Amino acid sequence: MDRIDGRAFDQLRPVKITRYYTKYGEGSVLMETGDTKVLCTASLQEGVPPFVKGTGQGWITAEYSMLPRSTQVRKAREASRGKIQGRTHEIQRLIGRAFRSIVELDKLGGEYTIWIDCDVLQADGGTRTASITGSFIALVDALNYMKREGIVEEIPLINMIAAVSVGIVDGQPMLDLCFEEDSRAQVDMNLVMTGSNKIVEIQGTAEGFPFSMDEMYRMMRLGEKGIAQLIEAQKKALGKDLIGGLPKDGEKNNSGQQEQE
Amino acid sequence: MDRIDGRAFDQLRPVKITRYYTKYGEGSVLMETGDTKVLCTASLQEGVPPFVKGTGQGWITAEYSMLPRSTQVRKAREASRGKIQGRTHEIQRLIGRAFRSIVELDKLGGEYTIWIDCDVLQADGGTRTASITGSFIALVDALNYMKREGIVEEIPLINMIAAVSVGIVDGQPMLDLCFEEDSRAQVDMNLVMTGSNKIVEIQGTAEGFPFSMDEMYRMMRLGEKGIAQLIEAQKKALGKDLIGGLPKDGEKNNSGQQEQE
Amino acid sequence: MDRIDGRAFDQLRPVKITRYYTKYGEGSVLMETGDTKVLCTASLQEGVPPFVKGTGQGWITAEYSMLPRSTQVRKAREASRGKIQGRTHEIQRLIGRAFRSIVELDKLGGEYTIWIDCDVLQADGGTRTASITGSFIALVDALNYMKREGIVEEIPLINMIAAVSVGIVDGQPMLDLCFEEDSRAQVDMNLVMTGSNKIVEIQGTAEGFPFSMDEMYRMMRLGEKGIAQLIEAQKKALGKDLIGGLPKDGEKNNSGQQEQE
Amino acid sequence: MDRIDGRAFDQLRPVKITRYYTKYGEGSVLMETGDTKVLCTASLQEGVPPFVKGTGQGWITAEYSMLPRSTQVRKAREASRGKIQGRTHEIQRLIGRAFRSIVELDKLGGEYTIWIDCDVLQADGGTRTASITGSFIALVDALNYMKREGIVEEIPLINMIAAVSVGIVDGQPMLDLCFEEDSRAQVDMNLVMTGSNKIVEIQGTAEGFPFSMDEMYRMMRLGEKGIAQLIEAQKKALGKDLIGGLPKDGEKNNSGQQEQE
Amino acid sequence: MDRIDGRAFDQLRPVKITRYYTKYGEGSVLMETGDTKVLCTASLQEGVPPFVKGTGQGWITAEYSMLPRSTQVRKAREASRGKIQGRTHEIQRLIGRAFRSIVELDKLGGEYTIWIDCDVLQADGGTRTASITGSFIALVDALNYMKREGIVEEIPLINMIAAVSVGIVDGQPMLDLCFEEDSRAQVDMNLVMTGSNKIVEIQGTAEGFPFSMDEMYRMMRLGEKGIAQLIEAQKKALGKDLIGGLPKDGEKNNSGQQEQE
Amino acid sequence: MDRIDGRAFDQLRPVKITRYYTKYGEGSVLMETGDTKVLCTASLQEGVPPFVKGTGQGWITAEYSMLPRSTQVRKAREASRGKIQGRTHEIQRLIGRAFRSIVELDKLGGEYTIWIDCDVLQADGGTRTASITGSFIALVDALNYMKREGIVEEIPLINMIAAVSVGIVDGQPMLDLCFEEDSRAQVDMNLVMTGSNKIVEIQGTAEGFPFSMDEMYRMMRLGEKGIAQLIEAQKKALGKDLIGGLPKDGEKNNSGQQEQE
Repeated sequence: MDRIDGRAFDQLRPVKITRYYTKYGEGSVLMETGDTKVLCTASLQEGVPPFVKGTGQGWITAEYSMLPRSTQVRKAREASRGKIQGRTHEIQRLIGRAFRSIVELDKLGGEYTIWIDCDVLQADGGTRTASITGSFIALVDALNYMKREGIVEEIPLINMIAAVSVGIVDGQPMLDLCFEEDSRAQVDMNLVMTGSNKIVEIQGTAEGFPFSMDEMYRMMRLGEKGIAQLIEAQKKALGKDLIGGLPKDGEKNNSGQQEQE
Repeated sequence: MDRIDGRAFDQLRPVKITRYYTKYGEGSVLMETGDTKVLCTASLQEGVPPFVKGTGQGWITAEYSMLPRSTQVRKAREASRGKIQGRTHEIQRLIGRAFRSIVELDKLGGEYTIWIDCDVLQADGGTRTASITGSFIALVDALNYMKREGIVEEIPLINMIAAVSVGIVDGQPMLDLCFEEDSRAQVDMNLVMTGSNKIVEIQGTAEGFPFSMDEMYRMMRLGEKGIAQLIEAQKKALGKDLIGGLPKDGEKNNSGQQEQE
Repeated sequence: MDRIDGRAFDQLRPVKITRYYTKYGEGSVLMETGDTKVLCTASLQEGVPPFVKGTGQGWITAEYSMLPRSTQVRKAREASRGKIQGRTHEIQRLIGRAFRSIVELDKLGGEYTIWIDCDVLQADGGTRTASITGSFIALVDALNYMKREGIVEEIPLINMIAAVSVGIVDGQPMLDLCFEEDSRAQVDMNLVMTGSNKIVEIQGTAEGFPFSMDEMYRMMRLGEKGIAQLIEAQKKALGKDLIGGLPKDGEKNNSGQQEQE
Repeated sequence: MDRIDGRAFDQLRPVKITRYYTKYGEGSVLMETGDTKVLCTASLQEGVPPFVKGTGQGWITAEYSMLPRSTQVRKAREASRGKIQGRTHEIQRLIGRAFRSIVELDKLGGEYTIWIDCDVLQADGGTRTASITGSFIALVDALNYMKREGIVEEIPLINMIAAVSVGIVDGQPMLDLCFEEDSRAQVDMNLVMTGSNKIVEIQGTAEGFPFSMDEMYRMMRLGEKGIAQLIEAQKKALGKDLIGGLPKDGEKNNSGQQEQE
Repeated sequence: MDRIDGRAFDQLRPVKITRYYTKYGEGSVLMETGDTKVLCTASLQEGVPPFVKGTGQGWITAEYSMLPRSTQVRKAREASRGKIQGRTHEIQRLIGRAFRSIVELDKLGGEYTIWIDCDVLQADGGTRTASITGSFIALVDALNYMKREGIVEEIPLINMIAAVSVGIVDGQPMLDLCFEEDSRAQVDMNLVMTGSNKIVEIQGTAEGFPFSMDEMYRMMRLGEKGIAQLIEAQKKALGKDLIGGLPKDGEKNNSGQQEQE
Repeated sequence: MDRIDGRAFDQLRPVKITRYYTKYGEGSVLMETGDTKVLCTASLQEGVPPFVKGTGQGWITAEYSMLPRSTQVRKAREASRGKIQGRTHEIQRLIGRAFRSIVELDKLGGEYTIWIDCDVLQADGGTRTASITGSFIALVDALNYMKREGIVEEIPLINMIAAVSVGIVDGQPMLDLCFEEDSRAQVDMNLVMTGSNKIVEIQGTAEGFPFSMDEMYRMMRLGEKGIAQLIEAQKKALGKDLIGGLPKDGEKNNSGQQEQE
């Protein structure tokens, strides 16, 4: 059995990372994996949400949205519907948690918020994982900006981070599903991992076929392999700008630093 | 190191399942695990959501809510805020998916919707997993009602289902976290599994400390053990009413039966 | 003519008051009148609404909600609809006014708000009156908590309060209507009265048959009688904890203390 | 003790009823009582709300709104706030119920809705009661329109209806409170009565001072007297157009015709 | 070809300006042009919107609304729909900009907001232009009030302002379209001009027939003529109260004073 | 005096039109004018809005949105705010009207809607006019798709359309303002014109300095010139695909074809 686009089961789609895609954001990256295209920007703003106010710490939050015709069939805008859908909420929370897990929020130079905006221009599967992988670059650019501006002395980045999807299609575990594979998948799993091969988030869903522990292990091995390649692509894109982001000896201390909303 | 309430690391809190807790629902169960109390009801309604209409199939959907003072600090009602929070959306979607994975929607007797309502009366950790474990009983009661009423000839249940939380607290993997443990956890994982030991959903989040594959396996073993005990508690509560819910030879065919919203 | 459940026309349904029903609220009471079950909690919070801020006084506010399957036919959640219905608004305002009429808000120990939450677990008529009768107990428990914590020196309670419904069904005035009676009633009246037999609120509606002054007097006499019994039940439930709540010589001075919203 | 404006305690403010105030409504009345001015229109529309659909009956519904500067201090528009306040909901429901109690909805010529719109141009106390008294005239004009157009053969009006406020100010029961009296009142009561002296709605609220049965009777006698005068003013304004509205022998049969929302 | 109501193509409908129409507003004007009736009030409030706060300047903002039965067919209230329509937004912004262009906001006596409320009682075409022409009078009354109260020493009004509609109906340019003309118009244009014949706003829309420069010039000449007559009507209505509002030598300096929302 | 970017006063910024920018839309164009970048897509959908239903005609509607970091300072998403701002409403309505004025809606092959989505990736002034100029290309591509699919026999396009901004900055009329010029402009005008030099929309606003007829004429001449160049750029981009869009002898008949919302 072959994949739709001729890839091997453990093969990623081509990855393309374009930095400085728009001119205003402190970080702005066009992330492409196959035909999936996400514009990831990082914006620095003074102030933090109410539940952080007064702690002297910073915050990172994420928003995710699909352009109405990023999909095969036009999707109504959430602004027009007047409310954000559950799926969007779920993805925004996932992205925000991921980045808060690798940044020392108490070393962000005070009560600053970094907004990660992920806007999907074209959706062909894996938009949430592409959002994380691409936004990491935008985040590093924003942190470098903060260092240049003297807001932070050192880049408070503990580790690199990337994400990939895996799944089981027609009984076969596969890496990095495109939309057509995803819509036929029996299991759909998203993995977020650090540059030192540790898990930040795992979310696996049986779409009809509950799966065994063994199948899960096989998917996770595929995911690990994909993440390693994405981390390499990130390193290449950042070049000498990757000052922080390399694993540090001691890891982050999560002293009460948890998402409130 | 001991647990707050003196439990062993692999020990569940006491489980109590009260059927027929309120009088109107086709199924109505008070699910208690330790001090966590969730009222789970299953309500049968004619009609299905727009994206299912015309298929002749049924649907299962879930809603979850916490009473304002189910928590240590009073929480504003979502009705008063005028919108549903991301966390609630996430949980509702999780519960709905879980039950759709074990019911043959095309054998629900036509275009009927079963509403699973999970209302948390008291929250002491693990409310989403208690919601799933308890609602399974309410669902079986509702399906039995459908059989008695002649809506279905046979209970279209493929398997039993239960859920449990696991986590790492102070470096130690633990089963079934209470609120105080949960708020100090470095990793928080929710597992939904069937009566035949297969995974329906896995969601793991590093709250500050990314975790290794090895730690993940240890947590999953704890989870498996907890699920097996919960399935036993469910069997005991249902007694002879567990007509369906035992694993069937062939599993469900997910022919396009996916969540649209 | 007999009543559905065999009661006399001037007879209340059985009343059951369970204190400390949930563990977090400063007051938490399960109020049952026949098959109507309302969970009433009282929660103390620092701060007051904007229109009270700066006065040094406290505030009492109420929220009311029906669980979706507390009724014969499942009712959509107001959180899901995205707005609160008129009926809910009406009831919340009624409950809030009732308690503000018997508490000296300027002696609440400063700018504190007591939230009265009335969540209907099972609705069989008279949920708004059961909410008031039950929440009185929760309120007293919260006020006693405030005294124990040293927030107030004395319980600032002027009087006890209870509520009951009366109506005319098939031409016959009746006390404490159950759902089936209520849905056939020609007149529906709710009475809120103090422990010293005075009226706090009266709301009467002709559902099709306008009624005479004479009929009104007959209904009010029935109501008075029911209230007196409910006050007795409250006294019994509170026992020695009823420090305040007994009528005081001078009554409350409503110096500008009116609801703004 | 005298009243602010020199009236006797049992004296109404001057009443002025201007028919045909705007040109489009099937009924359009400017109702003035003292400085309170309400524009009341009745609009006929095909169709009924979902819960009446298919019954062949008609419906009457009401909306109430204050212009932002109808009050001493400008009030934010509910459209700008994005939601309707509890007080508005309460008033709209009151007005709607009042008119449904005096019209035979099954003789409205089919599934038509009459919208009663009450827009307060200037508020000096008693806007909800002026809305009812004035809208009765607009309703009669709309019903006469329906007869002229052949939609109904006979005006399906059972009785006349009017409303007035009473209250206790400084211990003194008074009729028809103006804003300044209302804001000092210890008790505030609204009475809706028919042309044959029967009660449709009574709503009494103790603003700080619970009141006795005896005080209630005194207020109701004042109210009765005021209503009788308002009914006279309505008769004069309608002249020969008051075809229906006079009490009929048999009264309305409330066969399940109850408000659903 | 004649106009529906016999007017010449360059003739305005009768204009009637009633000052002090309601008693609370600092300015309150009933503006009538033909059968179009708009209640225009000006309300003074302390405080300014967030984007002006701290500048020491004042602000003018406008709200516009149609009563539900101001139109031939009843229109649902925006408060009931829960959102403001695009057309309303457009008109509110137009009115606000117009008045901010003729008032020196830095001489409003500090951080005060003047709310211009335009509520359409009866709509027969040209409601937005009547709103502007009428509200100018209400604004002058409010500014005179501010002077009497000592909030400003001098009326900070640079010029008078009025507005009119023009259009092309059946190929013929016409001044001041009534509703029936407007609904048949090929071009619809609104002009806002000052007392010294300068343009503040021009908005022209081809409803199906794009128009030439030449046609545009002809419409503008008609508009100029109408504005001049409206300015005369305003002068007559204000009489000796028109202290400011006459053109000043130097014009307003728009130092960053732009609308933010 | 020179312009910021060295352009002549009557010179457009460089225009770049990229067709087929995303893969799903029936039309998809990246429109660039200087640093302003708008992604314009045209999506065909079955069905029309309620007010067109049953007429057999088609409809064109537009939505406009700015990505949060398309601007210098990050702007909150309208989906997160829960409502669409007035400015957005205004622009969406403008774009929709423009395209409905050049398409024969009764020849769209039945009740189809074409959605024009304009998403601003980078905003440097003139986003609404770039949206119109770019979306024209996307519209033609969608119409050609409809012809290929046999939905229409002939492209029902009456004319080409483009839009440009003009303004007065420091007393000098200028064509095609960039953001920095726009924020200093005394007058801001947007012109929408057809391929045969006729006006579809004109919207001019004095930001502080009312302007004379003469200044208006000068701005319009500049605008005419810019539009002509944009029409040329469109012709070049479309090449042989411009089957319709050339002016037709007879123009469109606006038989009741007006925007309802």
